[in-house]
Amino acid sequence: MSGSVYGTSFIISTWGESHGEGIGVVVDGCPAGLTLSEEMIQEYLNRRKPGQTMYSTPRKEDDRLKILSGVFEGLTTGTPISLVVYNENQRPYDYSEIAKYYRPGHADYTYDQKYGFRDYRGGGRSSGRETTGRVAAGAIAAAILKELGIAVYTYTKSIGPVSIDYKKCRKDLTHSSPLNMPDMEASAKAEAYIQEQMEDHNSVGGVIECVVTGVPAGIGQPVFDKLDAVLAKAIMSIGAVKGVEIGDGFAVAQKTGFENNDSFYYDSNKELTKLSNHAGGILGGMSDGSEIILRAAVKPTASIARPQRTVNKDKENIEIEIQGRHDPIIVPRAVVVVESMVAITLVDYLFQGMTARMDKIKEFYQQ
Amino acid sequence: MSGSVYGTSFIISTWGESHGEGIGVVVDGCPAGLTLSEEMIQEYLNRRKPGQTMYSTPRKEDDRLKILSGVFEGLTTGTPISLVVYNENQRPYDYSEIAKYYRPGHADYTYDQKYGFRDYRGGGRSSGRETTGRVAAGAIAAAILKELGIAVYTYTKSIGPVSIDYKKCRKDLTHSSPLNMPDMEASAKAEAYIQEQMEDHNSVGGVIECVVTGVPAGIGQPVFDKLDAVLAKAIMSIGAVKGVEIGDGFAVAQKTGFENNDSFYYDSNKELTKLSNHAGGILGGMSDGSEIILRAAVKPTASIARPQRTVNKDKENIEIEIQGRHDPIIVPRAVVVVESMVAITLVDYLFQGMTARMDKIKEFYQQ
Amino acid sequence: MSGSVYGTSFIISTWGESHGEGIGVVVDGCPAGLTLSEEMIQEYLNRRKPGQTMYSTPRKEDDRLKILSGVFEGLTTGTPISLVVYNENQRPYDYSEIAKYYRPGHADYTYDQKYGFRDYRGGGRSSGRETTGRVAAGAIAAAILKELGIAVYTYTKSIGPVSIDYKKCRKDLTHSSPLNMPDMEASAKAEAYIQEQMEDHNSVGGVIECVVTGVPAGIGQPVFDKLDAVLAKAIMSIGAVKGVEIGDGFAVAQKTGFENNDSFYYDSNKELTKLSNHAGGILGGMSDGSEIILRAAVKPTASIARPQRTVNKDKENIEIEIQGRHDPIIVPRAVVVVESMVAITLVDYLFQGMTARMDKIKEFYQQ
Amino acid sequence: MSGSVYGTSFIISTWGESHGEGIGVVVDGCPAGLTLSEEMIQEYLNRRKPGQTMYSTPRKEDDRLKILSGVFEGLTTGTPISLVVYNENQRPYDYSEIAKYYRPGHADYTYDQKYGFRDYRGGGRSSGRETTGRVAAGAIAAAILKELGIAVYTYTKSIGPVSIDYKKCRKDLTHSSPLNMPDMEASAKAEAYIQEQMEDHNSVGGVIECVVTGVPAGIGQPVFDKLDAVLAKAIMSIGAVKGVEIGDGFAVAQKTGFENNDSFYYDSNKELTKLSNHAGGILGGMSDGSEIILRAAVKPTASIARPQRTVNKDKENIEIEIQGRHDPIIVPRAVVVVESMVAITLVDYLFQGMTARMDKIKEFYQQ
Repeated sequence: MSGSVYGTSFIISTWGESHGEGIGVVVDGCPAGLTLSEEMIQEYLNRRKPGQTMYSTPRKEDDRLKILSGVFEGLTTGTPISLVVYNENQRPYDYSEIAKYYRPGHADYTYDQKYGFRDYRGGGRSSGRETTGRVAAGAIAAAILKELGIAVYTYTKSIGPVSIDYKKCRKDLTHSSPLNMPDMEASAKAEAYIQEQMEDHNSVGGVIECVVTGVPAGIGQPVFDKLDAVLAKAIMSIGAVKGVEIGDGFAVAQKTGFENNDSFYYDSNKELTKLSNHAGGILGGMSDGSEIILRAAVKPTASIARPQRTVNKDKENIEIEIQGRHDPIIVPRAVVVVESMVAITLVDYLFQGMTARMDKIKEFYQQ
Repeated sequence: MSGSVYGTSFIISTWGESHGEGIGVVVDGCPAGLTLSEEMIQEYLNRRKPGQTMYSTPRKEDDRLKILSGVFEGLTTGTPISLVVYNENQRPYDYSEIAKYYRPGHADYTYDQKYGFRDYRGGGRSSGRETTGRVAAGAIAAAILKELGIAVYTYTKSIGPVSIDYKKCRKDLTHSSPLNMPDMEASAKAEAYIQEQMEDHNSVGGVIECVVTGVPAGIGQPVFDKLDAVLAKAIMSIGAVKGVEIGDGFAVAQKTGFENNDSFYYDSNKELTKLSNHAGGILGGMSDGSEIILRAAVKPTASIARPQRTVNKDKENIEIEIQGRHDPIIVPRAVVVVESMVAITLVDYLFQGMTARMDKIKEFYQQ
Repeated sequence: MSGSVYGTSFIISTWGESHGEGIGVVVDGCPAGLTLSEEMIQEYLNRRKPGQTMYSTPRKEDDRLKILSGVFEGLTTGTPISLVVYNENQRPYDYSEIAKYYRPGHADYTYDQKYGFRDYRGGGRSSGRETTGRVAAGAIAAAILKELGIAVYTYTKSIGPVSIDYKKCRKDLTHSSPLNMPDMEASAKAEAYIQEQMEDHNSVGGVIECVVTGVPAGIGQPVFDKLDAVLAKAIMSIGAVKGVEIGDGFAVAQKTGFENNDSFYYDSNKELTKLSNHAGGILGGMSDGSEIILRAAVKPTASIARPQRTVNKDKENIEIEIQGRHDPIIVPRAVVVVESMVAITLVDYLFQGMTARMDKIKEFYQQ
Repeated sequence: MSGSVYGTSFIISTWGESHGEGIGVVVDGCPAGLTLSEEMIQEYLNRRKPGQTMYSTPRKEDDRLKILSGVFEGLTTGTPISLVVYNENQRPYDYSEIAKYYRPGHADYTYDQKYGFRDYRGGGRSSGRETTGRVAAGAIAAAILKELGIAVYTYTKSIGPVSIDYKKCRKDLTHSSPLNMPDMEASAKAEAYIQEQMEDHNSVGGVIECVVTGVPAGIGQPVFDKLDAVLAKAIMSIGAVKGVEIGDGFAVAQKTGFENNDSFYYDSNKELTKLSNHAGGILGGMSDGSEIILRAAVKPTASIARPQRTVNKDKENIEIEIQGRHDPIIVPRAVVVVESMVAITLVDYLFQGMTARMDKIKEFYQQ
């Protein structure tokens, strides 16, 4: 059974291992007539590229994106778009050591249990490098959303104990912060915290927040395919994510109904709005026209250079120290991955949303 | 586009509105030869039935389950199982008032936006009564899991400010607590808290925890269909859920890698296990053989008898007071819904997991 | 794994056995705002009802259709529509005999092989009665197509050696012929042929043709989901169908390219059309705006009252004579089943076709 | 909406245009531990390579297959297998002429209608070259079937008026015939017929037959996913196929039930078999253990060098002569495409078939 295919109307199929020939994605269901270039996708990919700051692995991954199909004279044709990033920098790294034991916090053990063996080079398919395919597809989804007037904004909300408030975000500074944390004071504090942990050969976690504006009301399907449900799956499918929440999220558990309900009201322009947005823009599984707000909890990097206990293939209890330099934090580079998964999911459900009403279908086919 | 169909190998298709002819579900993909009776399903349904305690609506819903197909001489036949609960108690309640405005915290507005109009009787399809279909299907999934030695335990972890610890749970007392909170002292405190809020015409939220034992290692698919991802969708698709977390969940954001990694070790019987379970039993999206632990944040009931601001069909800002008696808390009755969604999802992925290895497929077909 | 769920955007889930509580279908993905009544569906169901002519089984099946959900004040609400026909006439027929052997041409043996045992009462799920669910859903699909100006016409093209020509069909007389064969002379000949075979305790086969007008050009997806491919699956999934062809079908194997190509031309109104329609209205898997023409080969009824060789449960070779009165021909009653499967499939692909172009999606969401 | 993704348990996603960067496929759901090499796939691809005989286009397509992911140390890993054939021979052919009109029998017009424009270079995605992805995936499916003891044999059954009988096939000579017609006398006659039509600047059609042995009884799902139904879709999705039949196919329409029913019997070894196989190995949509037999009607090549009428972009009725050298017949090269689609489909349904019985699932997980 397959797990690398995602979507119903807008389907992506990703492939590739950390140390194989490359990483790629096939996007099927992209409408015809969308302007698309390698540069547009590259820009997105660059946001997850390592080696850009001292808080990400200094591995050199050039990540040159190539479009292999589905685009003709600068426009998508409606046929599958095949995207690939070849792994150019395949160093003759020695993985014989890592092949022998199970790294704590990694998928080594579960891959072996499921498949009987594993491609142990750099984590194989379970490597964070797998997200390259998601981000490449995410760039296409973002281009579609832009055409529809929808904007997805994602940023680092917290790192370890340092947290910031969306209302005070300086969105324009997001990418000025090496941590994608758009509050320069907090960003500096977080940097200090990370450095402290790095010196201790340790790693840190954090929270990513995503805010979407411009989604029309009524997107998402009742019952099983509620918009918050499918977004939760999308986000939780990212490697290091351990929790997802919408709007006030876990805080609602301690609130009363009166505090939590958002009142509707008509403003002076007779536009319907809400007096608050505890619901995070989703009611009954459908968008309500206000900002969609969600958060993901990201665990600290599992690869740390500190001695750790584990087991080896000879069924011995051993102590290991993971070699190589690894990101001390996943959060900043995962920001664009969260953004991509949200964009891809929204496109899928915007497309599915076109058949909700008979009158609109009729109008569509009578034009 | 459809939203009431769920699953890939084990597919359920639910239907029905709060005040229509009934509520039902068709289960397709249930293997042949499973012992199944109306009683087995009824037992599950009784756990969500209202009117059993003072903390749920006193509405009389008898919820008599009928099997219409797919079972022959006490065994499932492998063909679709159609289950129905007829709505016997359709009182001539007057919904003309409720039809005119949008209840805060409900899906009235988003249904209207999506579909152009709505079945306003008791919330129609967006009513909590929709979960009857989930629980009926969940009973079948639970029977399958039982055959495979898998147990799903679900309970009320917190209500408002009152929280309990899994390690101190008295599982045997779960259903003795009117709140499904297996710590009688905490349960009593929570009851007092709810009563206080009820007197104030208010409602409360809480957290449900689910712990699954016996799942073999390697269940779940890498990348998009990670076991935690599909469980997150399953849980978040339940009406009032606003957040989902696996293992340590949101707490990981403030932890270090060294604290969060679970070390593997061989115990004295040379069985592989882990020294801790911060991961909640899932690594790289696949079960690791230890307990699977997840939590859902449930919002306070949206229907409260207190004056609230909202709008009406004449585009006026108005103040309303919702009539009728509603559950002051959703959590206790939602416990079995969470359990059902987890069971249904696990069955689907256990089934999908059978094709992971060529040697096992070969063995299967050579028997 | 499931086999009773069909569709992607417009999903139907059928259930029920010949001698169980009833037969039904849940339709998910029907747009809101469609006028729908039990009468509309009943009219369709009556076309497959037995006992109407001497060429169908005289079994009394009243087939009263009930809508259980998804319709409010005469309009579909966008939520699942649950339809049921209860089996009212469950006679205490003795199936102990039939349970012991495998009827030739039936699915008794393959059900046993797949599931380990079977519901042998009247064929269980493999009974032609299963098509009741398809036809009920087909009536809804037909109502949607009508709104979009699309008409599906289906008729008996041949019975045994008697064949008629579409161009000479008297469509208005289709239902006047007890065989749904709209050429009264041919119909009479076919009746004589059937009677001859009935006297010989034998059964006959035939061909059903379906012609669809009004489908806009461009419906169907390239590659795997070509419109002819999905229609072929839809038709071949009907019990007794052994072959499907589009346009000139198998005849193309003996034609040359010059004979088979359809030339495009602009008529005097500058409307694009084709000078012929050997392709049957589908080019490259997409509708070309001309009539869609397809045919299904239907085998003779497998249940015949003549002595036949087979085996029993005791692994003996035996001779049997199937009891009861059965349709001497499946074709006339299957006409509406073919029509239903075509209608359901077209709706699904018309819905999917709405996301082919970025400009149209943009326009849709900007209204 | 997407049309280049196929399968449920064994999913393939193909991409690529005739004159783009290449043609490829991603296979997700291939079990781990299958021996796989580029050579194994190349062998399959060579069977559809052009320029091998005088009856196929002399275009030079080297079609070198590359595995980009999913294989490690000679074995599949269970993760997506990405396969690509780069288009090395992209000649600067001038397609400006072909861009201006609609070729009869091709998908030019329907692509324009669906997507608003088209990649006109060599037919773009509608080119027969698209089948490269299917055949590459088919090679993997064939390797899986071989492990399970299943053999798929496919050959040219007829070309124009020349037809051969399966019972007299010299399977060993299939690839000795330039037409894949394993009766050397008939093959020579068919060659003469083709040459005659080639001199007349015309093309010819034919029939492909596929016979599968070794499929265990009980594969395929009742109702919509009957094995014959999904095979019909698989075959009809191949570009030039206009008809599909199983077993006796269209001939059943003129037979009686007594002639058409296959009697079961126990042979001297007490093995259950059938006295005939009119059903083509499928009863009630499930394999019955005997040979599965199906046929596809393939139309004559649409591209012919004879003057033909059509229309141009200026809405004029014109006469054209298609330039370049094209296959005078599609059949011989399509043989391996039919074989591939059958193999891919069988693998998918063999995998799905593993969850039909509770006792077998239990056994699987208790090993």
